Amino acid sequence: MKTTAKTITSRHNPLIKRMREAIREHKEEIVIEGPKPVADAIANGWKAIAVLEREANISAEAFDSITETKNPQHVIGLFERPHASAADILGRRDTIAVALDAVQDPGNVGTIIRLAAAFDASGVLLLPGCADAFGPKAIRSSVGAILSVPIARITPQELFDANVPLVATAMDGERSDPPAKNGVIIFGNEGAGVSAEVQRHATKLAVAMSQRVDSLNVAATAAILLARSFALRS
Amino acid sequence: MKTTAKTITSRHNPLIKRMREAIREHKEEIVIEGPKPVADAIANGWKAIAVLEREANISAEAFDSITETKNPQHVIGLFERPHASAADILGRRDTIAVALDAVQDPGNVGTIIRLAAAFDASGVLLLPGCADAFGPKAIRSSVGAILSVPIARITPQELFDANVPLVATAMDGERSDPPAKNGVIIFGNEGAGVSAEVQRHATKLAVAMSQRVDSLNVAATAAILLARSFALRS
Repeated sequence: MKTTAKTITSRHNPLIKRMREAIREHKEEIVIEGPKPVADAIANGWKAIAVLEREANISAEAFDSITETKNPQHVIGLFERPHASAADILGRRDTIAVALDAVQDPGNVGTIIRLAAAFDASGVLLLPGCADAFGPKAIRSSVGAILSVPIARITPQELFDANVPLVATAMDGERSDPPAKNGVIIFGNEGAGVSAEVQRHATKLAVAMSQRVDSLNVAATAAILLARSFALRS
Repeated sequence: MKTTAKTITSRHNPLIKRMREAIREHKEEIVIEGPKPVADAIANGWKAIAVLEREANISAEAFDSITETKNPQHVIGLFERPHASAADILGRRDTIAVALDAVQDPGNVGTIIRLAAAFDASGVLLLPGCADAFGPKAIRSSVGAILSVPIARITPQELFDANVPLVATAMDGERSDPPAKNGVIIFGNEGAGVSAEVQRHATKLAVAMSQRVDSLNVAATAAILLARSFALRS
């Protein structure tokens, strides 16, 4: 981690530029805001590249040039993006894994990461087309769970080849209990659901409900099925 | 319903003022925006006071003075607020009722109304301190369910006197199944949960989960318990 002998005063400082880029791009470096989230990330083993505290090791003006949030935090950390292994997530046969197929809303991705922690899933696998789990809104929606839930990208083919039973949520699926362990429960895009290709490789499962609504949103579906899986496992 | 022989052209027209007031105050008159929601409300028996269509019976300028949404709809309806009876909701012993205790976020109120429809609850009872179920954000979050779910205000005392078993969600509650019927499931404030007074009159129930998160949000808790109640009843 970069130590902070000198106070940063210029908004053109290379580290400031790098932080702004991390916020905009969130590729291999990600930004965490707020003293508690930054401390929690370090405590959970995330690799900090730099931590800046407003009016301590960075001037107010330079600090304020980084973020545009209305309620600015006074501490900001630049971290290496954590990389979990999809094989490790799939290897845990004592619980279920979660996979997301083109879940586009970062709030939904973060909320489902929180549910994966609450109901002790082995991790969250991101199929193509998902919102970034490490973007600011997803991190906020996970309410800290992003720190303890293994998250990895995966291709459909890698998922099919994993030799773990796949269960895809689908409105026309069977209204039965989700697996308690040794399975992957797949939640789909907010509009289109789980893709046809993934459905073909999976058992289709639906939440039992009345005819009074057309569908449930993906976060509610995940809450119901992950809670039920946990209850069956306990 | 007011017929529309004359085109409204002035933003000072009394009906325009009344609509603006209904949007701001949402007391006894409420506003529904968009052609499909307005048609659905009428089809579900809501009493329309007036329906305005931009550039049909109202000038564009006068219409645009009513709403401030970024994606304005071209149809807007002023309706009498529907009033369901708390006694009718509580009288249905073949299913459960939902009660909300100071649930402040209108998005949560609307989402739980949608869940009440999905899982066939008899209705939603609003204890003091809840966001208005008929405000614009709650209506949007209910995705149409506001039209088919009976909603009524109730005081704690009326609830205690109803002689229906009360179940309050609480982190320290028993981790058991919710009632399948003949009961009221009470969900609490986003921060404080169900009030101590209501808890004293209720059996406390918690969702079984891991120690990895402190709590679940109220919409997720409602999804899990209402789905489980429905499954037990089916």
